[in-house]
Amino acid sequence: MTGSGKDSLFGRIALIGAGLIGSSLARAVRRDGLAQHIAVTARTQATLDKVVELDLADSVGFDPAAAAKDADLVVLCTPLGAYGAIAEAIAPALKPGAIVSDVGSCKQVMFDDVQPHLPDGVHMVPGHPVAGTEHSGPESGFAELFEGRWCILTPGPEADAGAVERMTELWRRAGMTVEIMDAGHHDQVLALTSHLPHLIAYTIVGTAIDLEDELKKEVIRYSASGFRDFTRIAASDPVMWRDVFLKNRDAVLDALGRFTEDLTALQRAIRRGETKTLEDHFTRTRDIRRGIIDAKQD
Amino acid sequence: MTGSGKDSLFGRIALIGAGLIGSSLARAVRRDGLAQHIAVTARTQATLDKVVELDLADSVGFDPAAAAKDADLVVLCTPLGAYGAIAEAIAPALKPGAIVSDVGSCKQVMFDDVQPHLPDGVHMVPGHPVAGTEHSGPESGFAELFEGRWCILTPGPEADAGAVERMTELWRRAGMTVEIMDAGHHDQVLALTSHLPHLIAYTIVGTAIDLEDELKKEVIRYSASGFRDFTRIAASDPVMWRDVFLKNRDAVLDALGRFTEDLTALQRAIRRGETKTLEDHFTRTRDIRRGIIDAKQD
Repeated sequence: MTGSGKDSLFGRIALIGAGLIGSSLARAVRRDGLAQHIAVTARTQATLDKVVELDLADSVGFDPAAAAKDADLVVLCTPLGAYGAIAEAIAPALKPGAIVSDVGSCKQVMFDDVQPHLPDGVHMVPGHPVAGTEHSGPESGFAELFEGRWCILTPGPEADAGAVERMTELWRRAGMTVEIMDAGHHDQVLALTSHLPHLIAYTIVGTAIDLEDELKKEVIRYSASGFRDFTRIAASDPVMWRDVFLKNRDAVLDALGRFTEDLTALQRAIRRGETKTLEDHFTRTRDIRRGIIDAKQD
Repeated sequence: MTGSGKDSLFGRIALIGAGLIGSSLARAVRRDGLAQHIAVTARTQATLDKVVELDLADSVGFDPAAAAKDADLVVLCTPLGAYGAIAEAIAPALKPGAIVSDVGSCKQVMFDDVQPHLPDGVHMVPGHPVAGTEHSGPESGFAELFEGRWCILTPGPEADAGAVERMTELWRRAGMTVEIMDAGHHDQVLALTSHLPHLIAYTIVGTAIDLEDELKKEVIRYSASGFRDFTRIAASDPVMWRDVFLKNRDAVLDALGRFTEDLTALQRAIRRGETKTLEDHFTRTRDIRRGIIDAKQD
């Protein structure tokens, strides 16, 4: 059945997990007819009911192996901590030539936790669509989530070129610009652009939680002055982010080390009243904003 | 002339400085006819030209004392570091009964740097409209900036009740909800909601600047994954923020101390792989977001 439908890239796609990204991918695949059958699995009946209600799948179930059977493409859309067990479970069901991919925020984990379980003849193409919101669950997804954003694929040196091409085409059809990158480099870059910012946002919001009640109420009331922007990030899915920090530990700790050194230097400048150090630093940071606006990632 | 016009609260208002907040206040005062004459001062001819071009003032000039002469209300809209010199300059020009206020992000500075210069019979009512964007300069202001936001007034225990009432009415007419607070408490609360978040955003964006060029380019490219939100904050006016950190040093260092303790604890949990600590922390931070949405400060 593979690719026999008009414009369809895949016969059967299995999406393991139906959160923000998984459900958005299901919507994009459905909208553009990129697969002939979409199988979706989730861990709770409530999520499966929601997937059915939103008409995101042709079949639903709890069992990843059943969904992966006869699939041309299996995409892991779960927290990273579940990857190993899912890979072990689906491995016997995978057909030769099937592609196994994912949408996770760390990529080395695919080589560490997934690849060892995969049988010969199955192609692994790790993927990271760099898009998201602070909302979770199948009801928060939307097909346009990916439009105008980057998708990073991190195939290994032995990866099947055809499989990489098909994954590239899938994300292109969803509206993304696809980049190929080494998994370790991806994890280093994303530690800086994503994991560290989330860790810091989680920290500062946590600091506010620990305040006495009256002060906490005031922090919420006057949050428009800066704090608010951090709370949006810190409302992201807790289990997903727990796993990101654990699976990308070394790169996150390295990024955090750079950050705390720089923070300590600014703290010192404030304590000593070093006017020029502060002004110079705050002037330089403006340019980065301009770069982001120019790169149309604003 | 005071208040003789229909609905006008003040005869002559002098705005010292015409940045984002000063120019937005000028627009709101003009729109609603809250003063009969708006005098605006700035330090550069370019800013004054812009103020004239935008028709924000009835008179413009470089000299704060000339603007303050015969004014019923003088509002300092400059970086905090300029307050002392301006207060000294305008003091001889102030008429009895005049109100001196400001729009700064720290409030104790009004008691430290401004009050000592003011003659008897002049009423000081420090103010902080908690609103803003990352943009600077007279062209970035807009009259609606204040709508639905909070304005904090921090009059001293000896303040003139009538003056406080008139300042309350001014900000109410601009669309704000006015709160009265102790200046020191204000500075503590804002250190948490505003100054610390800005310091952290400035730091993390600075950390990215120091990366080698190739990595920096990638950080910009993939900034949509979290980093971007920090760059908006870190594009705020450098001189304004330099002065905030210097004038609210003790409260900022205290807030920073709480933050770094919490960050160190999370760092430790990541290094040790403490799954539950991380998940628990990230779950709690979600609730704060809900509080902000409920408080309509989103």
